[in-house]
Amino acid sequence: MALYVQKYGGTSVGTVERIEAVAEKLKTFHEAGHQLVVAVSAMSGETNRLLALAASISDTPDPREMDVLVSTGEQVTIALLAMALQKRGIKARSFTGWQVGIRTDNAFMKARIEDIDTAKMREVLDDKGIVIVAGFQGIDADNNITTLGRGGSDTTGVALAAALKADECQIYTDVDGVYTSDPRVVPLARRMEKITFEEMLEMASLGSKILQIRSVEFAGKYKVPLRVLSSFTEGNGTLITMEESSSVENPVISGIAFNRDEAKITVKGVQDVPGVASRILVPISDANIEVDMIIQNISEDGSNDFTFTVHRNDYKRAMQLLRSLASELNAREVTGTDNICKVSMVGVGMRSHAGVASRMFQTLANENINILAITTSEIKISVLIEEKYLELAVRSLHTAFGLDAEDSVAKD
Amino acid sequence: MALYVQKYGGTSVGTVERIEAVAEKLKTFHEAGHQLVVAVSAMSGETNRLLALAASISDTPDPREMDVLVSTGEQVTIALLAMALQKRGIKARSFTGWQVGIRTDNAFMKARIEDIDTAKMREVLDDKGIVIVAGFQGIDADNNITTLGRGGSDTTGVALAAALKADECQIYTDVDGVYTSDPRVVPLARRMEKITFEEMLEMASLGSKILQIRSVEFAGKYKVPLRVLSSFTEGNGTLITMEESSSVENPVISGIAFNRDEAKITVKGVQDVPGVASRILVPISDANIEVDMIIQNISEDGSNDFTFTVHRNDYKRAMQLLRSLASELNAREVTGTDNICKVSMVGVGMRSHAGVASRMFQTLANENINILAITTSEIKISVLIEEKYLELAVRSLHTAFGLDAEDSVAKD
Repeated sequence: MALYVQKYGGTSVGTVERIEAVAEKLKTFHEAGHQLVVAVSAMSGETNRLLALAASISDTPDPREMDVLVSTGEQVTIALLAMALQKRGIKARSFTGWQVGIRTDNAFMKARIEDIDTAKMREVLDDKGIVIVAGFQGIDADNNITTLGRGGSDTTGVALAAALKADECQIYTDVDGVYTSDPRVVPLARRMEKITFEEMLEMASLGSKILQIRSVEFAGKYKVPLRVLSSFTEGNGTLITMEESSSVENPVISGIAFNRDEAKITVKGVQDVPGVASRILVPISDANIEVDMIIQNISEDGSNDFTFTVHRNDYKRAMQLLRSLASELNAREVTGTDNICKVSMVGVGMRSHAGVASRMFQTLANENINILAITTSEIKISVLIEEKYLELAVRSLHTAFGLDAEDSVAKD
Repeated sequence: MALYVQKYGGTSVGTVERIEAVAEKLKTFHEAGHQLVVAVSAMSGETNRLLALAASISDTPDPREMDVLVSTGEQVTIALLAMALQKRGIKARSFTGWQVGIRTDNAFMKARIEDIDTAKMREVLDDKGIVIVAGFQGIDADNNITTLGRGGSDTTGVALAAALKADECQIYTDVDGVYTSDPRVVPLARRMEKITFEEMLEMASLGSKILQIRSVEFAGKYKVPLRVLSSFTEGNGTLITMEESSSVENPVISGIAFNRDEAKITVKGVQDVPGVASRILVPISDANIEVDMIIQNISEDGSNDFTFTVHRNDYKRAMQLLRSLASELNAREVTGTDNICKVSMVGVGMRSHAGVASRMFQTLANENINILAITTSEIKISVLIEEKYLELAVRSLHTAFGLDAEDSVAKD
């Protein structure tokens, strides 16, 4: 008799038939006597449909109104899932973010959860009902609707699990676990039984797309056992643990992540004086745009080329902002491209092994792939390359670091 | 410089292009210095799409969850309209029902507005912004989402106008005013310049579909001047006034309404004892199902056939309910049909003219149309007939009571 928070993503609830299948799955857990709180995403395609509506009206729609718009997607799913459970004779009750008191800050489109009121949920659970919560959304202190950013339903799931002190947070998705790399790009990628929070953090933030980074941070912070499973197949999925990587499999590199969602902006010819970096980045940060990599080059004439990367969704806004600041910064030019990608190798084993970086660079050099920028952390090395080299780079590294599955397994 | 509450229906906001057109119209009013509060419906087709999703899961979906589901339609529109106004450099802010404190009772799918908090709206208006409110929805005392029933956005508009003491409530729709009958059925129907609240109430409740009945009740009760106009063409529309019908046009009959949304239920062979009517109707009313006409016939054997009509949406639920009560009521059988319609003649002029009823029945008899039931009020006579006779009945009556437009006008 456990309390599980389960999260079902967009493809898991993508059609009425799949919603019925989720209801069947929940019924099995419910009949086994478990208490269930379920966070759901919008039906797959729905969020994109809503975003397209907004895009057809404005290139730069107001973030507050965007959240009013896109939060409807999850609201549709909670109602339909509640109906599907009720049809099966199970008590169920749906809640939007505001109805269940998911309080966030006011950073529209990328809000952070600050507090969750569990009273309403406890009421339903005590009455042997299943609680269905709209993922991805909350309200700020002024009762504006906020969303957590794409993939935010994972964060909702973990935050609910933390607030309710659930026994496990189970993220149901369309993949059966965390792989050494994206199997769509690397056919020989393998599922991991376990991965550490630390590694998962690096994998998620670098775009492995299975779990949203904040959900992993949350889970690590509140020690919520987190499991990624498939909605469509049976299996144990991948458990995300507090342990260092298991003794059985202890490779130097656990996985290779990549990210196509980056864009690069260069502010050319700014003066090389103290404070110039902050004069560029503070307005970006004030506009709630997150910066990832930062590179600074001295040109021949002694002026600076200042380069950084942002999420592609923020690219237009960041470019507008910087162009309006260009004269104030005495910058010669602001240029940018979204024609790049980032490839990252992650592994706690890296700590005790020298030479990972050099082997990585050598592998890429062998394929004639030019590295545009490099960042490193204790358990991660990332490089920025042209997007056209993405598949080649990831597959070469996967092989070079011994991650490839046995052929027989891959064909399974 | 007036304060207008404007309401735009589903077809007026049915596409992004039409939402842009509404924004243009609002811009004109805004630039003329008027204060604007705008209530909008879901984009046309959206509510039906959501209802179909629910229907594909359950024949009798939980009303609470239905309201969670369908209330998303208006939420999409408010965000898109706010974006369209902001693009035009106009301050605008969207509000869902709960955000603007539209408190209702807890009759899901047909809730009544009890209170509106105007503070947030005043704030935006004082800041020279346009307020956009999701029509059709509110919250009950327990913070459940409620909806006002189909067409409820009109009620939202009028209730906002009453709460804000607006100068006029303008209902923009796809017709250019109130007609003597539905022009799609009666090609010779004419637009009225004015109609009394009383007449409009009878027209709306009887299904002329231009305005929801509660919106007219509200408008009459709070003396809100109400005007029906077209979103697509210029014109004065039809003003709904407190006066008796204008001196210029003073016909006996103002209009002919009809309603296909009725279903008839007969409880056969109940005992003819006091209290039997209430034993049948109280459970119906407790289930929040509204009853329209009621007819009771004594059979040859002294038992009762008890017949009444309900909205077609409630038909299945009402049948289920009564069949489960049949044995308790000692009823022989519960039968029903939704193959009927109601035709009603409305006019304050009827008060001072005898013979309206007999002329109506004669006209129908001349066409061999059988009358299944009759109800009357001071300014209305309604008959229930088989649905297949609807068009024939309405056109014959329209001609017989001198309502037909001049041919030249009709062809305009």
